[in-house]
Amino acid sequence: MDLTVKPLNQWTACETAAAVARGEITPEAVVRACLDRIAERNDVIQAFVAFDPERALADARQAAQLPQAPLRGVPFAAKDILDSVDYPTEYGSPIYRGHRPAADAGCIALARHRGAVLLGKVATGEFATQTPSRATNPLRTSHTPGGSSSGSAAAVADGMVPVAFGTQTTASIVRPAVYCGVVGYKPSFGLIAPGGMKALSPSQDTVGVITRDVADAAFFTLGLHAARDVSAAAGLRPRIGLCLSRQWDYAQPATVAAIDRAAARLEQAGAQVERFWLPPQFEALEALQLRIFAFEARQSLAQERLHHADQLSPRLAARLRTEIGLDEHALMLQEAARMRAQVNLLFDRYDVLLYPAAEGEAEAGYDSAGSPRYGAIWTLLHVPCISFPLDIGPGGLPIGAQLIGPYGQDTRLLAAARFATQALDLPSAS
Amino acid sequence: MDLTVKPLNQWTACETAAAVARGEITPEAVVRACLDRIAERNDVIQAFVAFDPERALADARQAAQLPQAPLRGVPFAAKDILDSVDYPTEYGSPIYRGHRPAADAGCIALARHRGAVLLGKVATGEFATQTPSRATNPLRTSHTPGGSSSGSAAAVADGMVPVAFGTQTTASIVRPAVYCGVVGYKPSFGLIAPGGMKALSPSQDTVGVITRDVADAAFFTLGLHAARDVSAAAGLRPRIGLCLSRQWDYAQPATVAAIDRAAARLEQAGAQVERFWLPPQFEALEALQLRIFAFEARQSLAQERLHHADQLSPRLAARLRTEIGLDEHALMLQEAARMRAQVNLLFDRYDVLLYPAAEGEAEAGYDSAGSPRYGAIWTLLHVPCISFPLDIGPGGLPIGAQLIGPYGQDTRLLAAARFATQALDLPSAS
Repeated sequence: MDLTVKPLNQWTACETAAAVARGEITPEAVVRACLDRIAERNDVIQAFVAFDPERALADARQAAQLPQAPLRGVPFAAKDILDSVDYPTEYGSPIYRGHRPAADAGCIALARHRGAVLLGKVATGEFATQTPSRATNPLRTSHTPGGSSSGSAAAVADGMVPVAFGTQTTASIVRPAVYCGVVGYKPSFGLIAPGGMKALSPSQDTVGVITRDVADAAFFTLGLHAARDVSAAAGLRPRIGLCLSRQWDYAQPATVAAIDRAAARLEQAGAQVERFWLPPQFEALEALQLRIFAFEARQSLAQERLHHADQLSPRLAARLRTEIGLDEHALMLQEAARMRAQVNLLFDRYDVLLYPAAEGEAEAGYDSAGSPRYGAIWTLLHVPCISFPLDIGPGGLPIGAQLIGPYGQDTRLLAAARFATQALDLPSAS
Repeated sequence: MDLTVKPLNQWTACETAAAVARGEITPEAVVRACLDRIAERNDVIQAFVAFDPERALADARQAAQLPQAPLRGVPFAAKDILDSVDYPTEYGSPIYRGHRPAADAGCIALARHRGAVLLGKVATGEFATQTPSRATNPLRTSHTPGGSSSGSAAAVADGMVPVAFGTQTTASIVRPAVYCGVVGYKPSFGLIAPGGMKALSPSQDTVGVITRDVADAAFFTLGLHAARDVSAAAGLRPRIGLCLSRQWDYAQPATVAAIDRAAARLEQAGAQVERFWLPPQFEALEALQLRIFAFEARQSLAQERLHHADQLSPRLAARLRTEIGLDEHALMLQEAARMRAQVNLLFDRYDVLLYPAAEGEAEAGYDSAGSPRYGAIWTLLHVPCISFPLDIGPGGLPIGAQLIGPYGQDTRLLAAARFATQALDLPSAS
């Protein structure tokens, strides 16, 4: 694309960083374009819950002074479940109205250190659960953007910012990304440390990013660690396992058809694609994930549940009433550890798995942020996932899928995702 | 022991809860006795870094109104790495002088809800690392209490409080407990959710307790979950694997001899004890644990490292300079997952493993909090551990050991530890 005609707020992180590094644009100019977009659209999209143009511009001028920083000048937003010093952090809950944490979450501090510019905080479902935020889907504002990283997906899809941190405990990155027609990357558990994230289910809480393409997801995440993105150079023709399961029964026909078509095109492009059935012990992890979530969330949100129950949504309050006995929990811990080791077996024959990321298109209205079903198994297993739109469904909104890689092999997953999205010549989010 | 002559501040949590439940004492009386002890001794012990007698007494009166609460009237303290609303939370760092979090850590909120009474915050090594706090060892105040749960161990050992929350990322519960002659219990990763703990290495950070005996560790931890302690009734004659490794080369002769004597006595008492060598791939986890720690801590403490470097200790600042590449980190993630599954093989023949918890006696002076070597492997593996003193070393201070159980089988571990400490007729901490 000719960057001279593409508005600055629509530039990807890679484009922005490269142009800043060449001295062709300033961080301030990019940030200003994003702020203009936010000013123009946020009343409708409600993605940003806290922003401050003067501060963001000052941060942009400061970032300009970091010539070696790999993310210099890249605007980003952070889900409001992550602590920030310069912006209020409300965790999507009235309990924390106006709350000001003492430190930036580790990932925010690191991104700023690498030269990225924080534009503000974006909406989260209540404590990163399924209770929706007020954000709307930029592709059709009568519809949900998905959740719980609703603001992250909406802000990126609407051209407010090229990158936003999200978090996923079940499917809170991969689903909203698909609903909004963008890319959602949940790294291996442990790649981005969750320090400064309001804990929900700490054995599953994972920080990741939402971007407009796979290259940006890799560039930004690896840039946090000052690592070069080598996924483009991998030249991978991936062996893809099209992973069937009973969870597919809940996928809409358009989702199934889109994944089928994608599989055929990936084969034409040189990938090896093979269908296989997910062994039943993995299917059982959907229920296990929910129970471990419930056990941990009751503790993580003990203060809120016990002392501010009147300010919890009825949905979350009900969810936190699930009591799990210690005997059951002990068995769950053992089963989770066992399956985290077994998951490698799925990758003996495949580099990555292809799987739905959501049932179908984003739902109308704002009462539901969609089912997290398709994230549960993989988030519990700690393996990296990346979702992207595949096509437009019968209702006119995106439908998508995710690729899943072996634990710790994020670079390989990103390379496979890059191959796939290029081979499929996917519709842009903008 | 005749409770009529034992001062109230020396009562265990079990004794206190039972007497409160029978109406023989009030929570306020117990709390007052503990506060008197703190007032008398804290200038020397420096265990408590924040306390407020009026507030604690008010909390005790409130706890008295919770007749069904399983921990009613049990005084406890919390390591100052855990957030608290009613007391400043400084994480052992001048960066957070006077910091007031918005919510209690989940474990604190839960303990109070179960009727326990928070007496205040106790000293932590800087951000729960090895840089010592100012706490001293109550058994000999010229010596370190160990770390990083230094205040937790010192407060419990000195009779200030029967229970204190600690945290362990390497050996920060099991070691100080032994140094101070008390019991340190690190549950399975995930049993006590770490929400509201200042993150250090989130894939390893574990909340646990320090108490005066094994029964209290079980009673308090299970009581948090409103679960009855059934470990006493298990009637277990455990199969104990005396786990040899090259780490024993660093143990002082008195530690080796004490563990040998303990093994013999446990056999006499009906346990089955067998020596075996830890397979080399487990030995390698000591180094892996440190590297994963470094990778995550650099991110968790990014804000502090990047913006408050002048207020970090030189020791921590140096430690946070270790850079780990993403390729190495990917291999580490895979290896950790693999070994967390393999660890079950160690328990095919044994209910629990017997292992050193520290090299020997507490060191003189306050510059070092001792080597965390003996915790590294087990904390990385997420398995539960419980440490206790075995004997008095040649220097006159305790030497001890730990028992280690399979992941998720905390009740079984607690039962084995109860068997062992009874069979060994261990010296009391008081």
